[in-house]
Order: sequence, then structure tokens, then C-alpha cells
Amino acid sequence: MNYRIILRILSFLLLFEAVFMLVPAGTALIYGESQGFYFLLAMGICAVVGGLGLLVKPKKQAMYAKEGFVVVALSWILMSIFGALPFYLSGSIPKYIDALFETVSGFTTTGASILSGEKIEAMPNCMLIWRSFTHWIGGMGVLVFIMAVLPMNGNRNMHLLSAESTGPSVSKLLPKMRSTAGVLYLLYTAFTILEMLFLVFDMSLFEAVNIAFSTAGTGGFGIKGDSLASYSAYTQVVVTVFMFLFAINFACYFFILCEKFLEAWNTEVKVFIGIVVTAIVLITMNVYLTADGYTFGETLRYTAFTVGTIISTTGFLTENYALWPAFSQTIIVLLMFVGGCAGSTAGGMKVSRMVILYKGATHEMKRRLHPHQIKKITMDKRIVEHEVVRGVNAYIVAFVILFVVSMLLLSLDCQDLLTNFTAVTTTLNNVGPGLGGIDPTGNFAIYNTMSKFVFMFNMLAGRLEIFPMLLLFAPATWHK
Amino acid sequence: MNYRIILRILSFLLLFEAVFMLVPAGTALIYGESQGFYFLLAMGICAVVGGLGLLVKPKKQAMYAKEGFVVVALSWILMSIFGALPFYLSGSIPKYIDALFETVSGFTTTGASILSGEKIEAMPNCMLIWRSFTHWIGGMGVLVFIMAVLPMNGNRNMHLLSAESTGPSVSKLLPKMRSTAGVLYLLYTAFTILEMLFLVFDMSLFEAVNIAFSTAGTGGFGIKGDSLASYSAYTQVVVTVFMFLFAINFACYFFILCEKFLEAWNTEVKVFIGIVVTAIVLITMNVYLTADGYTFGETLRYTAFTVGTIISTTGFLTENYALWPAFSQTIIVLLMFVGGCAGSTAGGMKVSRMVILYKGATHEMKRRLHPHQIKKITMDKRIVEHEVVRGVNAYIVAFVILFVVSMLLLSLDCQDLLTNFTAVTTTLNNVGPGLGGIDPTGNFAIYNTMSKFVFMFNMLAGRLEIFPMLLLFAPATWHK
Repeated sequence: MNYRIILRILSFLLLFEAVFMLVPAGTALIYGESQGFYFLLAMGICAVVGGLGLLVKPKKQAMYAKEGFVVVALSWILMSIFGALPFYLSGSIPKYIDALFETVSGFTTTGASILSGEKIEAMPNCMLIWRSFTHWIGGMGVLVFIMAVLPMNGNRNMHLLSAESTGPSVSKLLPKMRSTAGVLYLLYTAFTILEMLFLVFDMSLFEAVNIAFSTAGTGGFGIKGDSLASYSAYTQVVVTVFMFLFAINFACYFFILCEKFLEAWNTEVKVFIGIVVTAIVLITMNVYLTADGYTFGETLRYTAFTVGTIISTTGFLTENYALWPAFSQTIIVLLMFVGGCAGSTAGGMKVSRMVILYKGATHEMKRRLHPHQIKKITMDKRIVEHEVVRGVNAYIVAFVILFVVSMLLLSLDCQDLLTNFTAVTTTLNNVGPGLGGIDPTGNFAIYNTMSKFVFMFNMLAGRLEIFPMLLLFAPATWHK
Repeated sequence: MNYRIILRILSFLLLFEAVFMLVPAGTALIYGESQGFYFLLAMGICAVVGGLGLLVKPKKQAMYAKEGFVVVALSWILMSIFGALPFYLSGSIPKYIDALFETVSGFTTTGASILSGEKIEAMPNCMLIWRSFTHWIGGMGVLVFIMAVLPMNGNRNMHLLSAESTGPSVSKLLPKMRSTAGVLYLLYTAFTILEMLFLVFDMSLFEAVNIAFSTAGTGGFGIKGDSLASYSAYTQVVVTVFMFLFAINFACYFFILCEKFLEAWNTEVKVFIGIVVTAIVLITMNVYLTADGYTFGETLRYTAFTVGTIISTTGFLTENYALWPAFSQTIIVLLMFVGGCAGSTAGGMKVSRMVILYKGATHEMKRRLHPHQIKKITMDKRIVEHEVVRGVNAYIVAFVILFVVSMLLLSLDCQDLLTNFTAVTTTLNNVGPGLGGIDPTGNFAIYNTMSKFVFMFNMLAGRLEIFPMLLLFAPATWHK
């Protein structure tokens, strides 16, 4: 293990975090909020610790897969530990464990909160924008950002990018990993600004910036107690559209810009749209036929918003879906597991994993019928390599083990089974809201400290696609 | 598709079913029950339909994997359709769909019932023993039995045995498949008689026979309204021991008889015992520390019984575990998924599948740390072939898809999420009882007809390890 190179990257990370905090610090300056001081304080702490770390020079530049996983996992943990400081030091969130929960939820773009609606509305603007901005930073990945900005050697980039980006495999858009990272961040920024422009017609610039950051990262922290329920239909529709856009593989937009339309219109996108349309049709019919007082148009709009917020794993809310019929609620919980496309900012298991799993299973069934025919699994006319299929299967097993262990630990807390089940679902898939005690009207403050640690681990594991977090605790990682 | 050979095997099956019905018919004769007539009637129907089918002679003897799956799935459906006749014709179960549910639950060794405690106690002995005897027939597999008795060509046997027996791969105990089937049934019969001998000290012969049939098939139909709660501690301990014995691979007993002790003491058995001991320790501690009025000894006995009844997927009951703390209930639900060892009469996913999944996932994680090391997955010092690993992964995916579709269909019925979740769990794993509306005090009569069809499909899919039932509905099966 090359500890010095790990230390170096972590030090850079803290320096970058100090720079990121200029956003809330600047906001405090604009609105004349005294709490801005705590961001300056946190920036100072990050800068000093990061600066001290940089004094240790690495002896070798070599970095392998092992170091890649460790660096990514440690980066996200460290970033959350330091990112929670302003909330805690300013007293906005009195307990450090709660501040840490909120920051982990922010960076992992989960959007699960320990704050009630009133407490959110009582927060100063600088704290609110830091909450939303953590979503934006975490959405595309912080190491991807550092990679796009700092020069690093190519082999190192590859390991970092593959450990931090979402989905079963990384699509290399450009020959150099650094250029790929740059293109991804450019597209990400462009879409965020576009959403801001659409939103600012209907609200203040501050609100537009917050909502755009939160949508872009598919996070879900809002700045009002009722999330997006009190905004206009126009805003809700704009956010719905952007939630879907941010749940699609960014490589697709790159291909569209390059006029490679066939590459953009791939299996994963088709299946994603298929799932979305099916879910909207089924839930709209179910809700429209059973609930009173909605027009068909309203039902469709609320359903599209809810399907968008859940499958993109954003977690914004307009309607309380916990009041919808059981059939709709079941679909909503299932969508949490699906999540968005690989290479998007969305969480969940990712549509492409679902496709690979399904193809693997039907392939196996065909093989049983005709044991002597040997065919390969293909997707978009390319062979899906054995390693990818094996990786997806291992991911599912690790996911289930994590789920089961979490359920056992949570059963020692005093919540009911439905609340616990959806709490694990929503944190491991980085969604945000659940059912029962954590439905759209509740929050995670009902859980005890041990449970909060379980959720934080799950949110990080979900965002980093499980392996980096598990490998951090595997003895094999630390062996010579 | 060789339709004539399929017809021939199905016809034999019906003739065998007529012979099986001699058991309840004889019971009716002994106890002078007039309902015995309906068994004679059903036997006549089976004999006529089976006899007519045998008139069609097959043109070719060839039988491939495809025919194997189709024959197994159709056999179990047909056997249930005809097996339900005595319940329905006699009026013991007034609706045919309920009689069918009860028979499917019997043959698949699930033990889920639509009958309340009082209705069970009101049944004549011939109906009760038919319920228990369906468990015994279904436990080891009906085609395995026919194979042990009738001469068939070897290639055909292989396909039937692998489609009907439990676990990811079939262990060939003897060079000839027919001898293997014979040995398995001999051991099965010997253990059943042994349990009867232990039980008859404490109850009537009729009761002992019923309970032994039900334990042997790991079914769970009882003859009293409160299952085994009113029996003595001695009986409960005997049943506990035999539930564990029937959940272990029968090949182990064969190896012990051959004095190949190392082969008997394999990974699956060790892991099974490890899970059982861990579950007993955790639940005993949890229940003893929270519940009042039990001595430590009582707690241990009830816990061992419950762990045995759930992991062996029998479903007998002494205590109402729905009143135990959440942590214990969570473990109980998890044990339902685990199930017994491969090659036993138990249901669930099987311990060996769990082991293979776990090894596959850790193997993949190690491969990520050291991408250039190539190692194989091994178990008991033998390489686990790729096909087995792929088969297990495909099984899990099919299991999850079936689970999800069932949950969606059930959400249209009016039960709560916990009841639905455990109902799918308990039917797909062939356990019997669940939580919520189907906890130890409830039964499946609360569900509507569509839900009952979902459960029947799940019970059959669970018993036949999913693929035969799914392939029955796959267009590829019926293509030329």
C-alpha cells in the first residue's frame, strides 16, 4: 500500500473542500449573515490540515486498484467529517452526529435529513446553500472534479474514476481520462445553469440556485419545509424534466453533441424510458381511480414528479405518496431499487445492472433448454464481458448482505419493520424519503445514534457502489 | 418436443397417485369413515385418465432437458389438480380453489393453509392423513419415486432427477441414477419410521404417523388447531431433532453409512450448523432478556423448535413468534430465505447457494484488489464450475423477479405490506406461516382468489427451484 500517495490525494481533497466553502461563505457575505464566520473557520481548518499533509512527499508515484478504492472511500468519509463542521460549530445542528449525518446525506446525494420542516426554514441562507452545494459536489464525484483540474498520471485517474463513477463500467469518452472527466463536468455545469435559467422566472435567484444544485446532484435537500409542494406547477414541471435528464448517462449527451445519435439511443436509455412510462401509467391509473379531488391532469403531473423524484433518487416531494394506494406505493419502493442510468448522478442499482441481470438470467434459462448451444450475452450489439456480469452479480450479493445486516442492526432500534425496510432502501439507494416513520412528513431524527451510523455507512456504500466501502474493512486490503 | 413421452410419464404419474390414495382410503376403512368413498372415486378418476393416456404409445424414446423441465412442472400441477378432488368432492373444503391451494401447499411441503384451527380439528382422519401424506410424497419428489420403481432409460432419469431434486447440483451417489433414487427413498423411509417410533410413546399411532409424514417432507400440516403447542416437551424435542435431520443433505447419511465421514462433514453442513447455532443463541438471548414468565430452559427449547421449524421450512408451531421482539422476528424472516441443505426435503434458497453466492462475491472483491491474479472458486477442495455459479446467480435473479411481481399483484388485494411480504417469502420458500395476517394465529383464507393463484404458482416455483415453472411459460420452450 502506497500510504504517501493516499495522504497526498486526501490533502488535495481538503484544500479543494476549503475552496468549495467559498460558495457558502460568499452567500453569507451577500446576505450579511454572521454564520459565514464558521465557514471561514472550517476553511482554515481544512487548509491547515491539507497543507500539513502536502508536506509529506510521495516516494513512488505508483498507484494500483487497491489504493484507488482506499482513496475514494477515505476521501468521501474525510470530506463529510470536515464538511459537517460549519453546521456543528455554528450550532445550526446542535449534535455533531446529526451534522455528520446531514453532510453524508448531502455529499452522497441522498437527501435524507434529520431536520424537521420548521428547522430547515429557520436556517440561514449560507447553511442552506452549503446543504444544496454538497449535493452538486457529490453528484458527479469530487475526485472526478479534482482529476479534471489537477494534472495526475493516467493510470491513477483510471482507478479513481472507475471507483467513483456510477454503474457497472466506465465509458471512456475521450482517449485521456482527464479529458473525459473535464467533458463530464462541463456538461454537468451547463445543465445546472440551464435549469437555473428556467427556474429563475418563477422564484428568487437564491432559490433557483439551490434547487438547481439539488436537482443536478439528484440529491433532494430543499429550502422549504414542504420541499417543492408550495411551488408553482411550472416549477414542478421544470424540475420533473431535469430530474429525468440528470438520471440519464451523461455520455448520451456527449454522443448527441458529437451527432452519434445511435450511440446515445442505447438499450439502457430505452429501458429507462420504458420503466418510467410504465410506472407513470400504472400509478396515474391507480391513483386517479381510487383518490378523490384530483383532475386527471393533476394526477398525471404529481405522478410524473413522484416517479421522477424516486427513480432519479432525488427525493424532492410535492404530494405525500404515503397516502396513495398500496399498489402505487409498491411500485415506488421498487423504483428506489432501480435508480437511474449508469454514468448519471442518480443512485439506485442502475438500469444497466438490471438489464445485465435480466439478460444473464434468461441466457441461463435458454442454456438449460439447449445445453449444447453456446452463445454470449450481448447488449447494444457488443458482447457483455464475463467480468462485467460477474461484477454485477457480486454487487447484488454485497448489496443484499449489507441490506440484511442493516435490517438486523435496525431491529434493535424501536421502529416498525416497514420504516426500517424503507429506511435501508432509501439510504442504500441514495433516495431520501421512505414510508412509515420516514414518509414525506417524517425525518430520520426518530432513529438512535447506532442506527444513524448504519445509515451513514449505507449512504456512502450506495454512492460508491458498495465495493470501496466494504474493501476498506476487508483484511485483504491491508495485507502486504 | 416429444409430446408422447410427456403424456406417458404424466399418465404413469396419475396411476401412481391412485395408488398413493390407498393410504387415506385404508385409513377411512380402519376408522369407519364414510368420506373414504371420495378417495375411491378420486382413485377411479386418476386410474381412468391415466389408463387412457397410456394407450398412446411414444414413437421415440428420446427425451432432452426441455422435456425434463416440462414433465416435472406439469406433473406437479396435474398431481395437485387431481389430489384436490377428495377434499372438494367430500365437501371438507367447499371451494375447489381452496382445496387446490391446500393440495399444492401439501405436495410442495409448504404447509400454508386456508383452514382455521377449528376446521382442521373437524376433519375426518382420512382427510387429515391425505394432507400429511402429500407432504411425504412431495418431500423427496414424486418423479424420483416413480424412477426408483419403474424402469426408465438413464438419460431420462438424469433430467427428471435434476429438475425435481433440491439445490444447485445433483450428487450422484451411485453410478446408476435409478439406484441413487432408490437409496434416497430408502433412507427417507427409514428416517420417517424412526421418528414414528420415537413419537408413538407419547401419542396415538395415527398422530405419530401424521406428524412423522409432515416432518419428513418438512411440510408442516398438523392435525390439531394449535399445531404442536399442546404436545409434551418430549414430542417437541423429538420433532425439533428430526426437523434438523430432514433439512440436511441425504447424501450425508449415505456417506456416513459408507463410513466416508469426511465427505459427510462438508462445508454446507458446517455452515448450516453454524447458522442454526448462531440463530438459536441470538434469539434465545433476545427473547429471554425481553419476555417475562419463561425459564431459560423453556426459552431455549421454544427457540430451538422455532429455528428448526423455520430453517427446515417445516412450519410446525409451538410458540407465537409474532409476539417476540423485532430483532428475533427479523432473524426468523431471514432464516426462511436460507432454508435447508441441498438434496434435503427442505425448501428455501438452500445453504449451498448462500455459500456459493458469498464465495462468488468475495472472490470478485479479491479480483478487484489484485486484477492480475486468477484463482478459481473452490468448495470442499473442489472447483465450483462456472456453470454452477452462473446457475445460482440466474436462480437469484429469477427469485427476485418472481418476488417483485408477486408483491405487485398482491398489493391489489387488501392486506398490509408486512403480511404480503412474509406471505410471498413463506410460499416461495415453502415454509408455511408468516407475520401480520398470516402469523401463527392466522391463515391464508384472508386472501382473494387471484392472490391464491399467485401463492400456488410461488409454492410450485419454490419447490421446483423456479426454472421448471418459468420455462413452462417461456415461448422458447415450445419452439421447434
